[in-house]
Amino acid sequence: MQNPVTVEVTRGNLVESRHRGLGVVVDGDGKVVFSFGDVDAGVFPRSACKAMQALPLMESGAADAYGFGNKELAFSCASHSGEDAHAAMAASMLAKAGRDVSALECGAHWASEQSVLIHQARTIDKPSALHNNCSGKHSGFVCACVHSGTELRGYVNYEHPLQAEIRGIMENLTGAVLGEDNCGTDGCSIPTYAVPLKGLAHGFAKMLTGNGLAPERAKASRRLMEACMAEPFYVAGTNRACTKLMEVAPGKIFAKTGAEGVFVAALPDRGLAMAVKCEDGTTRAAEAMIFALIARYLENGGEVQTKLMSMANRSMKNWNGIHVGDVRVTDAMFS
Amino acid sequence: MQNPVTVEVTRGNLVESRHRGLGVVVDGDGKVVFSFGDVDAGVFPRSACKAMQALPLMESGAADAYGFGNKELAFSCASHSGEDAHAAMAASMLAKAGRDVSALECGAHWASEQSVLIHQARTIDKPSALHNNCSGKHSGFVCACVHSGTELRGYVNYEHPLQAEIRGIMENLTGAVLGEDNCGTDGCSIPTYAVPLKGLAHGFAKMLTGNGLAPERAKASRRLMEACMAEPFYVAGTNRACTKLMEVAPGKIFAKTGAEGVFVAALPDRGLAMAVKCEDGTTRAAEAMIFALIARYLENGGEVQTKLMSMANRSMKNWNGIHVGDVRVTDAMFS
Repeated sequence: MQNPVTVEVTRGNLVESRHRGLGVVVDGDGKVVFSFGDVDAGVFPRSACKAMQALPLMESGAADAYGFGNKELAFSCASHSGEDAHAAMAASMLAKAGRDVSALECGAHWASEQSVLIHQARTIDKPSALHNNCSGKHSGFVCACVHSGTELRGYVNYEHPLQAEIRGIMENLTGAVLGEDNCGTDGCSIPTYAVPLKGLAHGFAKMLTGNGLAPERAKASRRLMEACMAEPFYVAGTNRACTKLMEVAPGKIFAKTGAEGVFVAALPDRGLAMAVKCEDGTTRAAEAMIFALIARYLENGGEVQTKLMSMANRSMKNWNGIHVGDVRVTDAMFS
Repeated sequence: MQNPVTVEVTRGNLVESRHRGLGVVVDGDGKVVFSFGDVDAGVFPRSACKAMQALPLMESGAADAYGFGNKELAFSCASHSGEDAHAAMAASMLAKAGRDVSALECGAHWASEQSVLIHQARTIDKPSALHNNCSGKHSGFVCACVHSGTELRGYVNYEHPLQAEIRGIMENLTGAVLGEDNCGTDGCSIPTYAVPLKGLAHGFAKMLTGNGLAPERAKASRRLMEACMAEPFYVAGTNRACTKLMEVAPGKIFAKTGAEGVFVAALPDRGLAMAVKCEDGTTRAAEAMIFALIARYLENGGEVQTKLMSMANRSMKNWNGIHVGDVRVTDAMFS
């Protein structure tokens, strides 16, 4: 199945570049409400499924034992920008479990956001694992292992009990069978599993509604999503898409991006979850798709819908502030 | 016409993202030697055609009057990284014409290369127009206007005599009719014109071979391309694709990238020029395509061909240095 062109980038009166994509909206029972493209194809969710990967932190009782509130829980689901407050939060979570940065196995990298990188360059010699965009998830991993007495070293490996537990959770949520055949290694070294986009969306619909989940998992899932919606800065950072999406309508939109053009969202008031993937892996297109797809399920003509569509169809300016073109979603998003 | 998938990005055993593209190889007479995708479609060359836009600097006599050598000529065709040597070169060229940074109309921006941005953040308060990736081209524009006595202000505008001259040059080279209908505004505020990819490649084949060009234009064209091949650092910068391509086989490969996934190249020993465009505008795919397309026309099994194919099909590592997947070109590049 051919994935349709879902996002166009224009210059002058012409289309300069085109992005193809797939997307799906699912309810708590797994019913597909809307879709475009090949949504049965396997897609690596990458960081979009971090809220699923944070469930052991909740279900083990570690989050409660360490007194984690919304900020810590949101941060355990984060792909953050490595701002000062993010690095401090990672250090603080690790300290609750009596550990420090040396426990993290995610590696270190400079910030990818320009303004954050400039600040980092001026204030630190080099970044540590605390600045890694995945340090919140990894701090949560460390806390879960320490609390349950699991050997910490190697917690990123496929064979480690924590990753086996996450694999089971993701099978339960997505309905996909996960194993070495559909496993890859993520940027932060943990396993990532390709699942049909439909299954990924269904997993988030289950987390949102609790449908088909054990009561403890349903409660833990809802608490993580509510924490993200309550503290969106700790899920991403200043001017980031996830943060902006959750700030635009507090408590009404859960959203999380993943590398290579993935985005998931859930709408508590509608009981729906959705997932998109840009075929070519480009973030600008994944963002436009999820903005427009969420807008489709909001009050028609309402303030939030209008705001989201202005984020989906946005003007591009050059270094002199001159309008040079637009990013815009196509009819494939609305048919 | 559907553009084929030309580049795949893998993770584990699976393809995670796919890029579609178009590409064409043309000789000096305009004969298409090889192509894939819709090469008659209009494509904005963006910065890939900077050597064409530098012809007024040569043909006006300004380059000789100001004593410009290979470094200055290469820099007038550059999309550079804003390294210290680049900013200094822009200032030096402007000084030859009795002007300074205030004459530049390209706007200012921080470097996009991470290592350069970190250095800039630590050494300057904010970037000036000298650091703009197009400051070499714009310094050349300023020199051409000052030398010929043309009013300088507004040199970026469609109506300005310099842009009208460039429009005529590009029509002569590409065979396309250029006007407001296929005109957009580039990142540095000058007009950019969508031309069929085939015409763009033919333009560079004419510049390389001189076929069909007035002697003065043929000579100026060849001199600019030779300057780029002689001083590849001044065309882009440390670790940049254009620079690496021209360093791998000195004097045998001319190459220039453009925004939104465009790349052109020319091979003096073969009398061939080529152009590629990634449909979705992604640089990683444009680079893989041009590396593989150039390799196709080099000595089979030779050192340079092997090196270029290892650049086209490259391993991706994560923050811990673990191999997570590959960028690879598909059979569409070789059929």
